[in-house]
Amino acid sequence: MRTVFHVSTVDQLSYVDAKVRNLLADDAVPVSAVAVVVDSGAVIDAAADGDGRERVETVLAAGGDGAETAFRVCANALRGATATLDDLPAGVEAASSGVGELTRLQHDGWAYVRP
Amino acid sequence: MRTVFHVSTVDQLSYVDAKVRNLLADDAVPVSAVAVVVDSGAVIDAAADGDGRERVETVLAAGGDGAETAFRVCANALRGATATLDDLPAGVEAASSGVGELTRLQHDGWAYVRP
Amino acid sequence: MRTVFHVSTVDQLSYVDAKVRNLLADDAVPVSAVAVVVDSGAVIDAAADGDGRERVETVLAAGGDGAETAFRVCANALRGATATLDDLPAGVEAASSGVGELTRLQHDGWAYVRP
Repeated sequence: MRTVFHVSTVDQLSYVDAKVRNLLADDAVPVSAVAVVVDSGAVIDAAADGDGRERVETVLAAGGDGAETAFRVCANALRGATATLDDLPAGVEAASSGVGELTRLQHDGWAYVRP
Repeated sequence: MRTVFHVSTVDQLSYVDAKVRNLLADDAVPVSAVAVVVDSGAVIDAAADGDGRERVETVLAAGGDGAETAFRVCANALRGATATLDDLPAGVEAASSGVGELTRLQHDGWAYVRP
Repeated sequence: MRTVFHVSTVDQLSYVDAKVRNLLADDAVPVSAVAVVVDSGAVIDAAADGDGRERVETVLAAGGDGAETAFRVCANALRGATATLDDLPAGVEAASSGVGELTRLQHDGWAYVRP
């Protein structure tokens, strides 16, 4: 199973890493992939430094045992952020749009969680 | 692909039109239909006038190129609103219930987004 | 059709019972099962007493006519709550994780609603 977390606020960013780890640690639910999709410029800026950056790095490092993790930011939101993709942790990717990415993943069978 | 946006607050109404437009403008994700489902009387009232009304009209006009857009309000929420269906922009439809509409659309394969 | 409601705040708990009842009362949408999944210790504590407890009991009693209802709390969130599973209304179940339960149900075809 695969799950996408939709993050739009700095508050959601502050605990999404714990949610991702809880999911991957749940032995009752076999999960092969987790993605976090961000569609807010404020969250992108928060993800560039300090505590927010640590959350992103935790998500990207949470895989293993056959589970992949991804962290993707909306290209539209990037234009509204001060930070650029280069300011974010290595491994963060741009999505053509946040809502498009959420649509595409669910179309491919991923579960959706608004944390 | 098809996507439903679930709107319950006036704040969500204030930017859902931008999300709908971002989705329809995303060339990487072919989208044939978008619906906004409202299940709050306060949002229905906000949708009747001023800025909120413009958001609804923008959603309804955002289709084209083979993509349809719809704006539906929960019949239960309508009973708690001051505005009636006739006070809303032409094209807005009533759903038998907001949660029922969200269930039906996802059952038919639509993606769900909480904006 | 089947629907899971994802509850993370005491505010969401305060009206999720009404959403469940609206869904089950919607004759246009045949629903065979509804689940509420809680992933917050604060909500678990609120569900143990008073108004919150009534909401849980309303959800659990809302079934009938072939529709089942369930109320499940995340085992991780239980560890952060003051209340224990024994303090909650009879019928409340523990899930191995809230996000795992949300993933599993959607994988099985349930619709997701963030109330």
